[in-house]
Amino acid sequence: MQTLTVDLDTRSYPIHVGPNLLERQELLAPYIGGRQVMIVTNETVAPLYLDKVKAMLPDHMVVSEVILPDGEQHKSLDSASLIWDALLEQGFNRRCTLIALGGGVIGDVTGFAAATYQRGVEFIQIPTTLLSQVDSSVGGKTGINHPRGKNMIGAFWQPRVVLADTATLETLPDREFSAGLAEVIKYGLIYDATFLEYLEARMDDIRAYDASVLTEVIVQSCQIKADVVHEDETEQGVRAILNLGHTFGHAIENALGYGAWLHGEAVSVGMLMAATLSRSLEWLDDDDVSRVKRLLESAGLPVEAPASVDTTRFIELMRLDKKNISDRLRLVLLPALGEARVTEEAPESMIEATIDHFPKR
Amino acid sequence: MQTLTVDLDTRSYPIHVGPNLLERQELLAPYIGGRQVMIVTNETVAPLYLDKVKAMLPDHMVVSEVILPDGEQHKSLDSASLIWDALLEQGFNRRCTLIALGGGVIGDVTGFAAATYQRGVEFIQIPTTLLSQVDSSVGGKTGINHPRGKNMIGAFWQPRVVLADTATLETLPDREFSAGLAEVIKYGLIYDATFLEYLEARMDDIRAYDASVLTEVIVQSCQIKADVVHEDETEQGVRAILNLGHTFGHAIENALGYGAWLHGEAVSVGMLMAATLSRSLEWLDDDDVSRVKRLLESAGLPVEAPASVDTTRFIELMRLDKKNISDRLRLVLLPALGEARVTEEAPESMIEATIDHFPKR
Repeated sequence: MQTLTVDLDTRSYPIHVGPNLLERQELLAPYIGGRQVMIVTNETVAPLYLDKVKAMLPDHMVVSEVILPDGEQHKSLDSASLIWDALLEQGFNRRCTLIALGGGVIGDVTGFAAATYQRGVEFIQIPTTLLSQVDSSVGGKTGINHPRGKNMIGAFWQPRVVLADTATLETLPDREFSAGLAEVIKYGLIYDATFLEYLEARMDDIRAYDASVLTEVIVQSCQIKADVVHEDETEQGVRAILNLGHTFGHAIENALGYGAWLHGEAVSVGMLMAATLSRSLEWLDDDDVSRVKRLLESAGLPVEAPASVDTTRFIELMRLDKKNISDRLRLVLLPALGEARVTEEAPESMIEATIDHFPKR
Repeated sequence: MQTLTVDLDTRSYPIHVGPNLLERQELLAPYIGGRQVMIVTNETVAPLYLDKVKAMLPDHMVVSEVILPDGEQHKSLDSASLIWDALLEQGFNRRCTLIALGGGVIGDVTGFAAATYQRGVEFIQIPTTLLSQVDSSVGGKTGINHPRGKNMIGAFWQPRVVLADTATLETLPDREFSAGLAEVIKYGLIYDATFLEYLEARMDDIRAYDASVLTEVIVQSCQIKADVVHEDETEQGVRAILNLGHTFGHAIENALGYGAWLHGEAVSVGMLMAATLSRSLEWLDDDDVSRVKRLLESAGLPVEAPASVDTTRFIELMRLDKKNISDRLRLVLLPALGEARVTEEAPESMIEATIDHFPKR
C-alpha cells in the first residue's frame, strides 16, 4: 500500500492505494466520527463489494445503504433526493458519514448529498473504477447533472479519506479499464515525461493487474492531479491543462451521442489529435506523435476518429466547448511530451487540416 | 448609513444598514463580478422593490428574475429547482450573481441555489424584513426544508454584501415587525446589557421607524450575532446561546401547529419563561423579570402562553428539541440580564412549576 496526502484549503486527507484494502478495517474506522454510516453504491458494485465494506465497519455503528441503478443518467437530482430521504427517514444526524462505493457517478452524487445534508456531513470515497481512482479522488468536485448540462448543480466538498483498492479493478470491464488508462496517460503527457516512460515500459504489467505497478500508476496520477489543482485551486489558469484532448473528445462524444464511446476513448483520440496538431506547430516531432499513438494503442484505446463526423461538423462542435472565450479555438497542446500549454496559437486552417487528415474508420 | 464588516473564515463582507439604500447604485455595482444577475424575490416583495433593485444595476448587465410564491412552504427543493432551471435556461455562467430580495425564506433558498449552481456563484442579500436583517445577514446558513424537517438540506455560503434598507420595514405588517423585535431583544438579553437599556429607552422610536435608531438597532444586533458566531464557528458551544427562548418557543409552535404563532411571538413567550426560570434559580430577581416582560410588551409581543397547551404536553414537546443530549433538559438561561448560559441545572420540577404558573390566555 502507498499513501498520498492531498493538501487543499484548510484540510488535508489521505488517499490509500493498494491491493485488497477492503480487507483492512483499520483504514476506515479512524475516519468515522459519529455512529451512523450510509453506504451509497449501485446495482453493479453492491453484489461485489458492499458486504466487504460493511465488514470493515465497527460493530457498534448503525450502517445503512442506498443502492442506485447503474449509469450516468442516474447522476441526477432524483438520486441525491433518494439519499437525502434515506438519511432523514433513518434519523441520521449531522455527525453521520456517507461512504461512496463505486465509480465517478456514485462518488459525485454521494459527495453532493454529503455536502448538502444538514449543511455538510463527513464523506469517504471508495472508488472502484480506474477512472474514478485517478480522477475523482482529487479536487473535491461533487455534483449532479441537469437536463440542460452536466455537473451544473454541485459543490466543492473534500472527502475525509479515499481508499483506492487496486483489486477492484479486476472486476472492471476491459473497455472501462482502458478508458481509465486514457486519463492516466494524460497525466504523463501534460506533466511528467518520466511517468510517461514508466507507462510505456510497464503497460503489459498494468493490463495484467500487477498490484505494485497499478499502485504506483494510481499514486503518480493522483499526485500529478493534486499538484496541478494545488497550483490553481480556483480554476483560472494552469488547471485547464487537465483538459488535454477534451475539446476534441467532447466533439466526438457529442457527435455520436453521449455513451456511444466511453469518455476515455474519445479523450484518447482527442489527445492524439492534440499531439498531431502540436506536431503541425512544430512543438513535437514525428517520433513524439508515434510514441503517443503506440502508448494509447498498447492501452487498448482507439487511435482513429469516427468516419461519420466530417471536419466542418467536428469544428462546430469544438466551438461549443465551454473553454472558448474568443473567436479563436482555445486548446491544450503539447510543447513537449510531459508538458502542456493552453493556447490559441493554432490557426483554424491548421486545426481543420489536422482533423481532415486524421486516420478514421 | 452604517457599515459593519463580518469577518468569517477566509472571506469578509460588509453589511450596509440605513434608510433608502435601494436608491444608491454605488452600494451594489462594485460587488457584481460578471454581467449576469438573477434577482430572486417573492410575489409580495416584487411589486414593492423589484424595480428599485433593477434600477440599481448598471445598464450593461443582463438582469433576470425569479418570483416565488410567498410563504415558508416554498422554502423547498422545488423552489431551488426553479432557480437552477431559470439560470440554465438563460445560459447563466459561473461568473453570475444571485440577489436575494425578501425575507428569510428568499434569502435561504437563494443562498442555497447560489451555493450549488455550477459549484458556487456569487450571492448578494437584500433582506426586507427585520428578522432577516438581524438574523440571516450573519452566519452564512443557507438551506431548504424537507418534508421531514426544517433546513435539512443546505450549505454554508457567505454573501458578497448585505444591504439592509430600514425603509423596507415600513411596508412590513406590524406583527412581523414585532416578531423581528423579539430577536433584537434576544441579542440584548444574551450578550449586552447596555444594548438592552438602549432598547428600553428607544422602543417608541423603533416602532415609529426612526431611521437612525433602527439603523443602530440592526447594526448592534448583527454585531452581536457576528461576535457570538465568531467565537464558535462550528456550533459546538457558545453559539447555542442564540437559542434563548427557542426550546420553550418551539414547544408552542409545535403544539399550535407551525404558522399559528409567528416564530418571534413564540420566542417572546419562551424568553420570558427562560427569565422566569432563571428567577427560580435565583440567577435573576423579580425586577429583572419585570423588565423583560415590559420590554417585550412594549415591542408589541405576547407575554402569555397559549392556555390550550398543558404543562405535561409542553415539557414533552421541549424534549423533542434537538439540543437535548442527555435526559435532563438543556436550556439557555440568564445568569444576569445581558448574559446567557447553556445549562442543565434546572430540575424538571422547577421547569414544570415555571410553565404551570406562567400566565396564560
